[in-house]
Amino acid sequence: MTIFSYERLYQFTHAVFIKMGCSLEDATIATTVLIAADLRGIDSHGVARLSGYIRLWEAGRINTKPNIKVVYETPSTAVVDGDAGLGLVVAPFAMQVAINKATLVGTGWVSVKNSNHFGIAGVHAQMALKEDMIGMAMTNASALVAPTFSIERMLGTNPIAVAIPANEQPAFVADFATTTAANGKLEILQRKNADTPLGWVQDKEGNESTDANILKKQGALLPLGSDREHGSHKGYALGSIVDIFSGVLSGASYGPWAPPFPAYVPMPENQPGQGLGHFFGAMRVDAFRPAEEFKQHMDNWITRFRSAVPAPGHEKVLIPGDPEREMEALRIREGVPLVDAVEKDLQIIAKNFGIAF
Amino acid sequence: MTIFSYERLYQFTHAVFIKMGCSLEDATIATTVLIAADLRGIDSHGVARLSGYIRLWEAGRINTKPNIKVVYETPSTAVVDGDAGLGLVVAPFAMQVAINKATLVGTGWVSVKNSNHFGIAGVHAQMALKEDMIGMAMTNASALVAPTFSIERMLGTNPIAVAIPANEQPAFVADFATTTAANGKLEILQRKNADTPLGWVQDKEGNESTDANILKKQGALLPLGSDREHGSHKGYALGSIVDIFSGVLSGASYGPWAPPFPAYVPMPENQPGQGLGHFFGAMRVDAFRPAEEFKQHMDNWITRFRSAVPAPGHEKVLIPGDPEREMEALRIREGVPLVDAVEKDLQIIAKNFGIAF
Repeated sequence: MTIFSYERLYQFTHAVFIKMGCSLEDATIATTVLIAADLRGIDSHGVARLSGYIRLWEAGRINTKPNIKVVYETPSTAVVDGDAGLGLVVAPFAMQVAINKATLVGTGWVSVKNSNHFGIAGVHAQMALKEDMIGMAMTNASALVAPTFSIERMLGTNPIAVAIPANEQPAFVADFATTTAANGKLEILQRKNADTPLGWVQDKEGNESTDANILKKQGALLPLGSDREHGSHKGYALGSIVDIFSGVLSGASYGPWAPPFPAYVPMPENQPGQGLGHFFGAMRVDAFRPAEEFKQHMDNWITRFRSAVPAPGHEKVLIPGDPEREMEALRIREGVPLVDAVEKDLQIIAKNFGIAF
Repeated sequence: MTIFSYERLYQFTHAVFIKMGCSLEDATIATTVLIAADLRGIDSHGVARLSGYIRLWEAGRINTKPNIKVVYETPSTAVVDGDAGLGLVVAPFAMQVAINKATLVGTGWVSVKNSNHFGIAGVHAQMALKEDMIGMAMTNASALVAPTFSIERMLGTNPIAVAIPANEQPAFVADFATTTAANGKLEILQRKNADTPLGWVQDKEGNESTDANILKKQGALLPLGSDREHGSHKGYALGSIVDIFSGVLSGASYGPWAPPFPAYVPMPENQPGQGLGHFFGAMRVDAFRPAEEFKQHMDNWITRFRSAVPAPGHEKVLIPGDPEREMEALRIREGVPLVDAVEKDLQIIAKNFGIAF
């Protein structure tokens, strides 16, 4: 474990995206989005994924000079074709379209096809905050999740992010996979040679499992709720809604056909659409009530929930976004710790691209 | 347990709403919405609640001659003031506003204040289907749910419904509480004198519990995910989003201030808004791609998921909406079974109102 400053990770990552052929502007956007994950402690979605993006680019599945454009629209909606660009760049483009539409008619809703992995959902949803809008972002992803009553991997971890502005309080920012545990949580346990709790995964026959490596053995992640008795059909429904809004509305691939992130995994045959899909929303809060009034009530909401009686052994009740915001402040100040495997990965990239690290 | 025909329950309920002072049109809407729950097997939200609505009306908290109206709007949004009307009537009004806006600008989003319990969310979301729109409905509710790390009841079971049209396949209709188990599930266990599974509720000190009567002892329902390790912070975030979209956007009450459904529970003091809140959305599918194309891909999505490999011991994988649709077909044909307590409740209502039952 070594600690790297934000600046150092930023400059390195930026140089990599430039070497991959991104424009200066796209490299800046992609780097900012990617490293936001490291800053917030969502280590699985930051520079740890850089080599994965490079392999997709090498395999011809990422176009670093995309012509991203709106291909279909109404006053409050649009479909964006990402032209196989980095999702890290396609997503902010599409979110900006949603924001522009919200400015004009109150809300904007954008479904995206022909994209790739877009980093963390929360960073896109948060683009809306500075405009006094509620932001939403979701995406489908490689199929790793078995629906309730199934042993087949049909859905991605399909995250949902919702960012809601407040006045003096920090914004409410929820950002979560629609599974009991995100894949990144398994990766952490794999490195520690530790087991998962029961209820996170099942083996290829559908039995309970605590094997953090079970996805390599045709096992599956479980939808939020873990099992039917604890509401896994609700997590399955949520993941499905994300898949349909991101994939079916836009014309992207969906369900088990979603393009896998690891470049070595063959593309599923008979693709019903193009690339990965995302879905973004922006709602002007003053499309419902005066913005100051809304934000003051959000302050009231947040302070009331923060002061809810804590359970024994817990100091306080958290508001969605609290842990990530605290981590971000810490890591901007003290740097980002990278595990040895990731550091080694970046060194190999540095060597291959002839960039200092 | 006695079985009642749909027609008989309908006529009785309709007569009750008329006696309460509803217009003929409102009584028809309210009855249709209420009994949709009985037909679908969501028995806790059907005629079993009729006496609860009556008590709220007697307590002056339901206005059966409301002036429901749009009080704020943009091309794609509106706020509806329910004038303390039956949520069963306010909700279809507001959903229709969302649909009308979607017809004009692609999508419509309506937040509602000053309302009451609206029955099952799914029936409102489904209003969008016949227009080839995706429908959404959610509502806040009496605080019975403790956030992760808390012992205080801060949120309702805050359901989310999403209805998505298909072509030859029946529509995708998800409709679920954002808790591990809905309150109605506890009521069923109470009648059977049975325990809940672990992970549904906690006692007033935050300990694990299996007591189906725990809500009467200051215990709480748990957010979807049950505990932090299994993602309860995600269920807490979802319930919070529903509360904010329904309550804070509209100017309704929210969080622990949400008006309680049982009329004997005193209203929380210092109400920050008016009544319960709801939130509705409608998105024209052809605001994203041609409707036929979308619906054919939904057919493909549904048939692919229905044919996912089932886990041992399970016959098939279900699509959200399957169990309720099958139950509805059965109960229209064979009638609705009511437990003795509910039948007795309706007999008392019949006597009080001088209606035949």
